[in-house]
Amino acid sequence: MRIAVWQARGPDPGAVRLDGAAARAAAAGADVVVTPELFATGYGAAGPGGGFGPADLGLLPRLREIAAAHRVAVVASEPDGGHITAVVIGADGTVGGRYRKTHLWGDDERAAFTPGDGTPLIVAIGGLRCAVIVCYDVEFPEVVRGLALAGAQAVLAPTALDDEAVARVLVPARAMENRIALAYANQIGPGFCGASVIAGPDGRELARAGAEDEELLVADVTADDLERARGLGDYLADRRPETYS
Amino acid sequence: MRIAVWQARGPDPGAVRLDGAAARAAAAGADVVVTPELFATGYGAAGPGGGFGPADLGLLPRLREIAAAHRVAVVASEPDGGHITAVVIGADGTVGGRYRKTHLWGDDERAAFTPGDGTPLIVAIGGLRCAVIVCYDVEFPEVVRGLALAGAQAVLAPTALDDEAVARVLVPARAMENRIALAYANQIGPGFCGASVIAGPDGRELARAGAEDEELLVADVTADDLERARGLGDYLADRRPETYS
Repeated sequence: MRIAVWQARGPDPGAVRLDGAAARAAAAGADVVVTPELFATGYGAAGPGGGFGPADLGLLPRLREIAAAHRVAVVASEPDGGHITAVVIGADGTVGGRYRKTHLWGDDERAAFTPGDGTPLIVAIGGLRCAVIVCYDVEFPEVVRGLALAGAQAVLAPTALDDEAVARVLVPARAMENRIALAYANQIGPGFCGASVIAGPDGRELARAGAEDEELLVADVTADDLERARGLGDYLADRRPETYS
Repeated sequence: MRIAVWQARGPDPGAVRLDGAAARAAAAGADVVVTPELFATGYGAAGPGGGFGPADLGLLPRLREIAAAHRVAVVASEPDGGHITAVVIGADGTVGGRYRKTHLWGDDERAAFTPGDGTPLIVAIGGLRCAVIVCYDVEFPEVVRGLALAGAQAVLAPTALDDEAVARVLVPARAMENRIALAYANQIGPGFCGASVIAGPDGRELARAGAEDEELLVADVTADDLERARGLGDYLADRRPETYS
């Protein structure tokens, strides 16, 4: 599977710049392009008044058009019925499924949105079973562990992050401790720290973005890579759940 | 709390070198010195035949003597009744409690030892509630999460590690994702990678050892540090266990 992570500045009204990024991802042979959290509206400017808002901004038709035009899957997120919802669009333009952000971050998000109930979204992309989560979700080991135990081989995560330690410390650990790949696409600009990353199942960074510029990261992860990493310590097999409180 | 981590080569018969390390830790004002897994016998040479063995090697009286002589708590581990057992000895020489390694590593360990049932050990040292685990235990987020939820503010871990990614990627993540301190004391020498570390509740490395030499790391962690880190994201409070499978 070839993963592209698009680190970008929001807002991108009408997903005009995403269209270009999807074209570049497709030209690089990527199976999927992962976008930052709420990239189209801009994070924190999703509502009519410039603050967060629960309105469905209707990005979906445009995302389907972009995916189908470039033959690349797209993972994107938008305000949707009071939730922060991530969608997977297949390379044929069909909707692969929705996931609602389960861990909302801070008072503003909690005031504006309703958290999801944790129902997972796992779809096949590029030969691997891929789960989608959003931003703060990844900081909880329980979330990614649950997805790995449900069979996920890669986790794709739109984010809007300002604490670089999350991207540097927690994200590679989530990949390693579950022997999966993890792609984490962040915003740039005021209030955001970039440092988007694609982490491999042995904890190595397969690709890492800088702090300030728009970038398209591309990295390959195969089922063989996952298998090889399990040889370093097969965490899912070696768990002892009967001892966990 | 001032934590000392003694990175050392095994074996140290009779804990002769530990005695010197404990003296240096005490002179540095440390409340506790954490030692590598099975340091006295050497890892993999615990039995009469040079392999692992279940025999109780009787290190405890010597550890109590060292702790009391230097007025510093000691965390150490030895084969004990078929388990790999870690003990905490208080600065007054009394035994603070025992913990049995719950996740055994690889076929050799599993053939030689019986895993513990996960019963935690949490004791007060230097004003913080400290839990003790051993080596492979730390690689499972469930273990450290359970200890943090039970009130641990620091986790002290003897280890005998050869995969440096564990020390670099997973250990700082365990500290950060639980907003605790984590002290990880590794062996050096053939088959071991050093890189012992004391990680803080914001994911930063407070002290880090090299790959080859005996070292004594010393770092301070206070309840205020833990509180400040929770301000960056209060993971224990923000968990949504009803959504975890």
